[in-house]
Amino acid sequence: MCPFWQLDTGNFFTDNYYIMSSFDQIVELIADDLSAIEVKLTEHTASEYSFVDMAVQHVVEGGGKRLRPILVVLSAKVCGYEGNDAHTLAAVVELIHVASLVHDDVLDEAAIRRGRETLQTKWGNKVAVLVGDYLHARVLSMLVSRRADDPAMAILADTTQAMCEGEVIHAYKSGDFDISEAEYLKIISFKTGKLIAASCTLGAHLRNPTDTQQVEALTIYGQHIGTAFQIVDDVLDFTEDADKLGKNTFGDLREGKLTFPIIYARTVCDDDEKQMLEKVLNPNTDEAEAIAFVEALFQRYGVETHCLKVAQDYADRAKAALTDLPETPARVALEQLADYVVSRES
Amino acid sequence: MCPFWQLDTGNFFTDNYYIMSSFDQIVELIADDLSAIEVKLTEHTASEYSFVDMAVQHVVEGGGKRLRPILVVLSAKVCGYEGNDAHTLAAVVELIHVASLVHDDVLDEAAIRRGRETLQTKWGNKVAVLVGDYLHARVLSMLVSRRADDPAMAILADTTQAMCEGEVIHAYKSGDFDISEAEYLKIISFKTGKLIAASCTLGAHLRNPTDTQQVEALTIYGQHIGTAFQIVDDVLDFTEDADKLGKNTFGDLREGKLTFPIIYARTVCDDDEKQMLEKVLNPNTDEAEAIAFVEALFQRYGVETHCLKVAQDYADRAKAALTDLPETPARVALEQLADYVVSRES
Repeated sequence: MCPFWQLDTGNFFTDNYYIMSSFDQIVELIADDLSAIEVKLTEHTASEYSFVDMAVQHVVEGGGKRLRPILVVLSAKVCGYEGNDAHTLAAVVELIHVASLVHDDVLDEAAIRRGRETLQTKWGNKVAVLVGDYLHARVLSMLVSRRADDPAMAILADTTQAMCEGEVIHAYKSGDFDISEAEYLKIISFKTGKLIAASCTLGAHLRNPTDTQQVEALTIYGQHIGTAFQIVDDVLDFTEDADKLGKNTFGDLREGKLTFPIIYARTVCDDDEKQMLEKVLNPNTDEAEAIAFVEALFQRYGVETHCLKVAQDYADRAKAALTDLPETPARVALEQLADYVVSRES
Repeated sequence: MCPFWQLDTGNFFTDNYYIMSSFDQIVELIADDLSAIEVKLTEHTASEYSFVDMAVQHVVEGGGKRLRPILVVLSAKVCGYEGNDAHTLAAVVELIHVASLVHDDVLDEAAIRRGRETLQTKWGNKVAVLVGDYLHARVLSMLVSRRADDPAMAILADTTQAMCEGEVIHAYKSGDFDISEAEYLKIISFKTGKLIAASCTLGAHLRNPTDTQQVEALTIYGQHIGTAFQIVDDVLDFTEDADKLGKNTFGDLREGKLTFPIIYARTVCDDDEKQMLEKVLNPNTDEAEAIAFVEALFQRYGVETHCLKVAQDYADRAKAALTDLPETPARVALEQLADYVVSRES
């Protein structure tokens, strides 16, 4: 990596660039793109039926970090693309993501998400399942108008299929206490990794679909930060306070969901602890008791530290994948984003 | 309509044609097409993950009448198209339909469908929501490979959006005892009518997309039989025994769902009965009491007869829309299908 003063800063240079160190600064770097994406999100999800519109806007405006749109934009920029099509694709991936969250919340019976009531809390399960379906229908509409040789449809068809497969297998395996770390990593690469990777692939494709080297580099980058992102998500469920997280802590544990920290803890603890761990994952176990046991166990074996180290390894691999890309501010932002995915607090 | 001996029987003429009078005979007329469609359905929903595959095949093979595939094939044939693309489009519309049933079953907490256990009975809500999503992802895959100027994607994007809007509005209005017949008909034209109409539109498009007269005639036909179909579905929920129906009778009533017979009964009964009707739709009312009251009320006001008459009016309008189409066996089959939709017992 060359020193910053030799960087080609492109046409999105900002004064803040030299001190860019946090997610907010990445957001500032591409603020105009993100505003344009918000407009597209609202435009393409509007319904002439006021109740549908209200329910859909509730989840679309629910916000979140817009990580996937950011990845589309930065991947496009690092490959030298500056056009508006990145905004459309960014909106498409975000809607696929929001639809999956809406259905996740139904499945998890979640009451709050990002500090707001979930759809099923406000209007019931039925509306929530249907709003997820509606968002998928709107994604299809957005894809209809694309060029015949556009790879986006094939990539996203493949991605949405893999996301569902990952989710179905995770749901099916939820009772299997003996799931291996490798199996779990495969599941999360499908559930979470695929769409994050697709965001990078789609962005990279915009400039020059035939430069397979750049497309592949960014796809690998996306896969790795996807895995890092999910591992950190799993950790935050145990460590973060509910206010910052915008949802209930210990949600995964309360549902008896096996996640990365639990799977790791199981491999390092002794037989008695392992038995107890299996017991506390049973929803019938007293919740306070379960949480106290898991917190003590995690402390004893440094589970949080270990998991964050694994996540950082993935983030480092993600950054390494960018080596041959032009040394632009977009690349720096992608590198910093990889670290942010691990260091974030919510 | 000319006498049968003057009919141009096309290349799918069978000996049974002259006595064709039932749904089974229509099925026999296009048996080869329907077999080819079953192959496509299995092929395009296969997953390399055995559990996903098992869950998906459970619902896809669950069968049903394949009404929508039949409509694609007959609409294509009546316009003179005999190629294989009808099979792909037929499989696509059927998968959209199956996906919507899977999600409906989750919403309705249905335990059986078409005489088989529903997905959520076998593997839980989570798997059911996800299998519905998976089917949508596969539909996207099937559409990816189509020609750029193919209208199917735009038609289906529009259709799936309308289906969701219809469902969301129906869910939202479910507590509104004063919903008008016109409002309800609008909702069912979205929920049910759109996909049935789209099946006809897509079939008609295959032969000659620029002959808007034929496309429009078949779309109108589809809209009307779609409405007839849903009204009859609503009636069967009250009148059919569970064995024939393949699901629980009085399911709609037990959920407090306002359907066509109830909406009609409300407009003809006296004030006391209206008050009682509103009360029995409340899920807290004793079920046996609710059913007895509704059965007596329907008897008193001839609700079943009235609703079937309305459905037959729609079927007649559907048939009238076909007037200018060539007088082929496919047209006769479409006419008979319109009557079958009303006379069917399950």
